Amino acid sequence: MEKRIITISREFGSGGRSIGRLVAEKLGIPFYDKELVDQVALESGFSPKFVEEHGEHAPGKSLLSYAFAPQGIPGVMHGLSTADFLWNIQCSVILQLADEGPCVIVGRNADYILKDREDAFHVFVHADESFRAERIVTKYGESEKSPESRLNEKDKRRRVNYQHYTGRTWGMAQNYDLCVDSGTLGEEQCADIIVNIVKNSQK
Amino acid sequence: MEKRIITISREFGSGGRSIGRLVAEKLGIPFYDKELVDQVALESGFSPKFVEEHGEHAPGKSLLSYAFAPQGIPGVMHGLSTADFLWNIQCSVILQLADEGPCVIVGRNADYILKDREDAFHVFVHADESFRAERIVTKYGESEKSPESRLNEKDKRRRVNYQHYTGRTWGMAQNYDLCVDSGTLGEEQCADIIVNIVKNSQK
Repeated sequence: MEKRIITISREFGSGGRSIGRLVAEKLGIPFYDKELVDQVALESGFSPKFVEEHGEHAPGKSLLSYAFAPQGIPGVMHGLSTADFLWNIQCSVILQLADEGPCVIVGRNADYILKDREDAFHVFVHADESFRAERIVTKYGESEKSPESRLNEKDKRRRVNYQHYTGRTWGMAQNYDLCVDSGTLGEEQCADIIVNIVKNSQK
Repeated sequence: MEKRIITISREFGSGGRSIGRLVAEKLGIPFYDKELVDQVALESGFSPKFVEEHGEHAPGKSLLSYAFAPQGIPGVMHGLSTADFLWNIQCSVILQLADEGPCVIVGRNADYILKDREDAFHVFVHADESFRAERIVTKYGESEKSPESRLNEKDKRRRVNYQHYTGRTWGMAQNYDLCVDSGTLGEEQCADIIVNIVKNSQK
C-alpha cells in the first residue's frame, strides 16, 4: 500500500521534529507542526501560544479547565472542557490536512487520529534520557529546572494526554509502523530510513 | 558505535525469526534460535524440547515447577525453580555467544541480557493480529485452537516472562533501537533496514 502521510510521535528532546522536517524536505511535501498549531488556533479562536501549551497536555479535570474559553466565541465550546474542545478541533484539522495530500505531521496524536488511513505511515522517535537531556540544553538552553525534570514533565503530559484520548499506551511499538532510537541511529539516518520506506511503497 | 550483535524480539507469528535468519545470511554471521536452545539444553541437562517449551514462558509459581529437574543432576538447581534455573543458564549462554563474535540472537530476552553491550543492536518485530493469524496458519498449520487464541497465549507467556525477569514492559519502543511492523514493511525490507544500519555503523 502506497504511503503518503507520515505521522511522527516523539519523546521530548529526541529530535523527532527535526527528523520530520528532514523527511518532508527529502520528499518535497508539506511539514505540519507549529503551522498546524496556528491553523488549529485560527479555527478555535484561541491564541497560538495557548494552543501550543495545551494541545498535547493532560486534559484538565477541574472546573478551571472550562474557564479559558477564548473571548468573542461564547457558547462555541458546547460545554466541552478546553482540552476536549481543542482535541475535537485538532482531529478535524488533521483529518483535513491528510485529505489535502501527502504531508508529514508531527505530534498531536496524529498516529491515532489517522489510524484508519491505509496510506498513513506512523513513526515513533525516542532516545535515552542522557542523550535527550544534553540535546535540550544545547537546543533550548538552560532553565531553572534540571533537563531531566523538564523531560519527565513534558513526556508525562504527552503520555497522559495520549492515554486519555486514545485509550492506548504511549510508546508501545504496536501503535506504530516504525520506532527508531534517534540517539543510536542519528537524525539523518532515521530520516533516510523513513524516506526509503515511503519511496519503496510507491514503486 | 559499531554494531555487531543483533537481538530480535518478536510477537508470535510476526516473522521475527525469518527476518533474523535473513539478516544473519545477508551479513554472513551466525544465527541463534533453536541452536541456542539446544546449547542451553546441553548445559542444563534438560531435553531440547523441554527447554524450548519453558524458555520463554512465565515462571512457575507452584511447587510443580521444582518437580522437573533433569535426571542425573540432583542438587544442581541449587533450590531454584525450573524457570529460574533455565533463566540463569540462558543468560550465561547468551553472554558467551555475544563474546564469541558477531551474531543474530532471536528471542530469549536477549535484548535485556545484552543491554549493557554497546555493540549490540536491539530490534522488536510486531504485526497486527490478522496478519499474524493468517501467517501462523500458513506456516504452522491449523490446530484445535483458533489462530487468535494461539497468538494471545504465546504472547501473554512472553510478556509475563519478560516482565518477571527484566522488570520492563514487553513491546515498549524504548527498550529497542528499532521496532518494525513486518505486516506493513514485509520481511525482506525489515531485514534490509537492519542490515543497512549495521553496515553503516561499521563504516
